Amino acid sequence: MASLQELSDRAAIADLLHAYCRCCDLNDPDGIAACFTEDCVADYGPGVGPPASGRATRRAEAARDLQLFDATSHHLSNIVVEFETADRARVQSVLYAWHRPRTGDADWHLHAQYDDVMVRAGAGWLIAERRLLVAGTVGFPDWEWLPIGRA
Amino acid sequence: MASLQELSDRAAIADLLHAYCRCCDLNDPDGIAACFTEDCVADYGPGVGPPASGRATRRAEAARDLQLFDATSHHLSNIVVEFETADRARVQSVLYAWHRPRTGDADWHLHAQYDDVMVRAGAGWLIAERRLLVAGTVGFPDWEWLPIGRA
Amino acid sequence: MASLQELSDRAAIADLLHAYCRCCDLNDPDGIAACFTEDCVADYGPGVGPPASGRATRRAEAARDLQLFDATSHHLSNIVVEFETADRARVQSVLYAWHRPRTGDADWHLHAQYDDVMVRAGAGWLIAERRLLVAGTVGFPDWEWLPIGRA
Repeated sequence: MASLQELSDRAAIADLLHAYCRCCDLNDPDGIAACFTEDCVADYGPGVGPPASGRATRRAEAARDLQLFDATSHHLSNIVVEFETADRARVQSVLYAWHRPRTGDADWHLHAQYDDVMVRAGAGWLIAERRLLVAGTVGFPDWEWLPIGRA
Repeated sequence: MASLQELSDRAAIADLLHAYCRCCDLNDPDGIAACFTEDCVADYGPGVGPPASGRATRRAEAARDLQLFDATSHHLSNIVVEFETADRARVQSVLYAWHRPRTGDADWHLHAQYDDVMVRAGAGWLIAERRLLVAGTVGFPDWEWLPIGRA
Repeated sequence: MASLQELSDRAAIADLLHAYCRCCDLNDPDGIAACFTEDCVADYGPGVGPPASGRATRRAEAARDLQLFDATSHHLSNIVVEFETADRARVQSVLYAWHRPRTGDADWHLHAQYDDVMVRAGAGWLIAERRLLVAGTVGFPDWEWLPIGRA
């Protein structure tokens, strides 16, 4: 049976994932940066850019990427938390992200997964490592992504 | 750490949100009304109509709106609960709602958020205030919505 | 108020639903079969085939169906758990499943619900009965489905 601490941490981890999505949809790069550890490593795939290290880089890249759109909506589900220690967890989730490009082009749709390592940091949790794994896209440029590993 | 009471209330609040969605998809205006307090205030944006007060009005408007469609599917995720008191919470969630219009027109897609105030009512929770905030739509008429507040 | 045992079981049941979706997206029929009881009954609707009994049949049908696609993404939300006993629950959830057909045809979209009976099995939970109820589809062949029961 899960402990109260574990269930509480699962809820906090879900809140963090949702805060990240919310900041994306509000075009809030500062809020996005605050979801990551100072020395985080984030890999959104080679089409977006090389893996980025550090909260400041994550902020800059989010600011750059979000201004491509007039609107986005990040629908996050299928959250699975596996604790490696009491203060560190591997967290997988599934994302359907709708994007309306500023160019007026047809909407972009992203069907993907976040494969994260999260760590307890003071009173809360932060994302220490993130990989975006992509099942498929609609409308996006023909970028190279990290695959989900389908057989 | 969250208490057992808080985690239990979070689960009950999620159940209420899901019951609302289920009643939408089943075209059950009575069930929808039962999710709200007697004196609720609901604002689905100026394109849908002026803010509505009271459970009976909510029921009537749901009945009116749902008969526009042959089918809908409300996919709710990103639930975030902030307790203002032990018996009152602000609850945000993200909605992808698919609609098939009765007219035979192309499907309508809604990417939105519920911004709710929920209150403990007897054994359960009810929606006391709701605002529908819209990130974007596909297929819908050019209605005016409440915005999510993207920068 | 929910007990710690109930909240722990709810988390385990959500994990099971997510594991199923993950195995679908990874094209892992063995993993799918492992989500079901040995004597499970699964009904995906007459268009997919007659109700199937047993884990081995479930595995075979998943293997057959998943090879229709180059990619899928199963977005599961709106999980509602009702315990019939401490070891048996009725579980409803809402699915948006995106499919990219191997044929190169336009993407298939499924808006549906899982109506499951789950049972405690040793340390975890397994799906004993499943019905797929369909709100609507886009792109799919004109198969007959089990309806969600909209009024």
